[in-house]
Amino acid sequence: MPTIGIADTTFARYNMGAAAVDELKQLINAKIIRVTVPGIKDLPVAAKKLIEEQNCDIVMVLGMPGAKAQDKTCAHEASQGIIMAQLMTNKHIIEVFVHEDEGRDDKELAFLMDSRSREHALNVVKMLQSPEQLIKEAGTGQREGFADAKPVGR
Amino acid sequence: MPTIGIADTTFARYNMGAAAVDELKQLINAKIIRVTVPGIKDLPVAAKKLIEEQNCDIVMVLGMPGAKAQDKTCAHEASQGIIMAQLMTNKHIIEVFVHEDEGRDDKELAFLMDSRSREHALNVVKMLQSPEQLIKEAGTGQREGFADAKPVGR
Amino acid sequence: MPTIGIADTTFARYNMGAAAVDELKQLINAKIIRVTVPGIKDLPVAAKKLIEEQNCDIVMVLGMPGAKAQDKTCAHEASQGIIMAQLMTNKHIIEVFVHEDEGRDDKELAFLMDSRSREHALNVVKMLQSPEQLIKEAGTGQREGFADAKPVGR
Amino acid sequence: MPTIGIADTTFARYNMGAAAVDELKQLINAKIIRVTVPGIKDLPVAAKKLIEEQNCDIVMVLGMPGAKAQDKTCAHEASQGIIMAQLMTNKHIIEVFVHEDEGRDDKELAFLMDSRSREHALNVVKMLQSPEQLIKEAGTGQREGFADAKPVGR
Amino acid sequence: MPTIGIADTTFARYNMGAAAVDELKQLINAKIIRVTVPGIKDLPVAAKKLIEEQNCDIVMVLGMPGAKAQDKTCAHEASQGIIMAQLMTNKHIIEVFVHEDEGRDDKELAFLMDSRSREHALNVVKMLQSPEQLIKEAGTGQREGFADAKPVGR
Repeated sequence: MPTIGIADTTFARYNMGAAAVDELKQLINAKIIRVTVPGIKDLPVAAKKLIEEQNCDIVMVLGMPGAKAQDKTCAHEASQGIIMAQLMTNKHIIEVFVHEDEGRDDKELAFLMDSRSREHALNVVKMLQSPEQLIKEAGTGQREGFADAKPVGR
Repeated sequence: MPTIGIADTTFARYNMGAAAVDELKQLINAKIIRVTVPGIKDLPVAAKKLIEEQNCDIVMVLGMPGAKAQDKTCAHEASQGIIMAQLMTNKHIIEVFVHEDEGRDDKELAFLMDSRSREHALNVVKMLQSPEQLIKEAGTGQREGFADAKPVGR
Repeated sequence: MPTIGIADTTFARYNMGAAAVDELKQLINAKIIRVTVPGIKDLPVAAKKLIEEQNCDIVMVLGMPGAKAQDKTCAHEASQGIIMAQLMTNKHIIEVFVHEDEGRDDKELAFLMDSRSREHALNVVKMLQSPEQLIKEAGTGQREGFADAKPVGR
Repeated sequence: MPTIGIADTTFARYNMGAAAVDELKQLINAKIIRVTVPGIKDLPVAAKKLIEEQNCDIVMVLGMPGAKAQDKTCAHEASQGIIMAQLMTNKHIIEVFVHEDEGRDDKELAFLMDSRSREHALNVVKMLQSPEQLIKEAGTGQREGFADAKPVGR
Repeated sequence: MPTIGIADTTFARYNMGAAAVDELKQLINAKIIRVTVPGIKDLPVAAKKLIEEQNCDIVMVLGMPGAKAQDKTCAHEASQGIIMAQLMTNKHIIEVFVHEDEGRDDKELAFLMDSRSREHALNVVKMLQSPEQLIKEAGTGQREGFADAKPVGR
């Protein structure tokens, strides 16, 4: 049975961690370990600790960067740290970020934060249980939260 | 009893380190070790030394990036270093930065620098003593210094 | 017989991994190991795992960053991680990225994604089998996907 | 007796290294080791070598980034490397950069390059000999080269 | 006898590696090892391999970033990797980049790519054989390729 880590934030305006946990429980028989930190810049080390101290096989980090320029910089720094944490552990950490300005209004924002968390939970399950399924979906324009894009043909 | 490190700067225009220490003393029985460095780019290694040479369990780094473009770049570099220091030590380092242009005037700037330092001190205490409390606050739009944001519903 | 890793994404709108594998099979007798991940930010650790866990001698990572500003930032983060993964393993990881806005239309985009994947597959073969050929091509304005540039003379 | 490393560049238009050495000799009884490299991007490893191969307790790196956009990027890269070098060695490396466009004319530029080098030399001495003095100056708006800023009160 | 590594690219429009090798042969009795890679983002690991697998004492990496915004980002990523490679090996890697838009026309571009390669070859020789000469040139406004800048006086 795999161990899946979930790290989200108190800064976000929707409980993304709960959505991910709910979805995972429907999809897979796994041990789930959850932590919540203040903001997205606290996520890289939270994920690394879940891997190295809690033996997680894979981790989802979920957050909602704000809409201001400074928030975009924070998201960039967090993403760089999340990639580095993966390189230091040889484990995948699936980043689920919904920028606050991606939704036209609060309702769409909530929808996006919920659906992207759930669709990436499905990605996590595929990565753990059926990586060959992902190869079948290579280059098919998959999107998480919004509608998929169309593949281009030659 | 946990050991908490505090690193701040002589560049800042408000004694953020003192505010954090004052708040922590009211909230928790801990050993507190404080250092002050010239500027925010000196904070990453200061935090790492507090963890590795002074055995701190967690560190707060506090600073006030200036308002010029060059200062924004310095803040970005400092933040990247602070995230890397966490990944190298598997310890949380809570970044408390107040940009000089976040306050409309000196009075609001001083208020923000004080209140954000104190609210993040509370986050540190929760991370040390009651991480389950943070999970309860996941996705609730917590902000440090300014008023909290409103969660979005589906 | 060398082992070549191929990592691509489900986000891309063309099956770049298949194009690379097809080209490699025509060019070299090698063991090819393929994985597909959701997006380009998952590529750095995927490549590192191919090298360290699957003993790949070299890896191709293929992806299609989107056209939005946020997508450009993702591509930047992925590229930084891909360079770091190389430095941590002392193996080359050939990045094959086609930005969604590089093509004037879907047809040109598909052409670019196919041809750049194949031309970089040829680079991989040269790096494995005839590095002296690359020295002969030094400074000759080679381009992958589009027409080569012209060398400048003194 | 502490060992202090000094690394500066041939690119700069003022002998910042000499100013730092001159100031240090007036302030502290220390062994000083100096190197000069071509440009600021050569400073991170120069500083790391001073620490690891020459046993420096602390290093000053001094440079003058040019005024063009590309020069700003170089300064950013150098600063990131300088922070990383500190994290890899657990030693402070004090960055003394004066951007070429910080001075209104050559005379002010020379003044800034000299005075900032000297004021940071004083910071180095405080870090080595009286770190408690820096805590006393926390949040007091210290600036190096230009006049100090005013602290803000609540 | 020192070992000097040379890494350049097939993307560049002038044979910078050949210019550097030619100049070095006139200046120093050294073992020279040359590799060519497709693009500048392949240079960081190429340099690290020259140091760690071929025992180079110092490496020159030479490239010509293109003039588009995306090319500038590639150059930034390459430069960050080159600095990191130095920090991981404690060896200098001299970056010789000529941006395609630095020259007003192809002729000036070729001139710059040749002369900057040669002038940095001289820097490499000084770093290996006469580091005290570089200290004498500290702060004198040295430039590679274009005319030197003027030092500023107090």
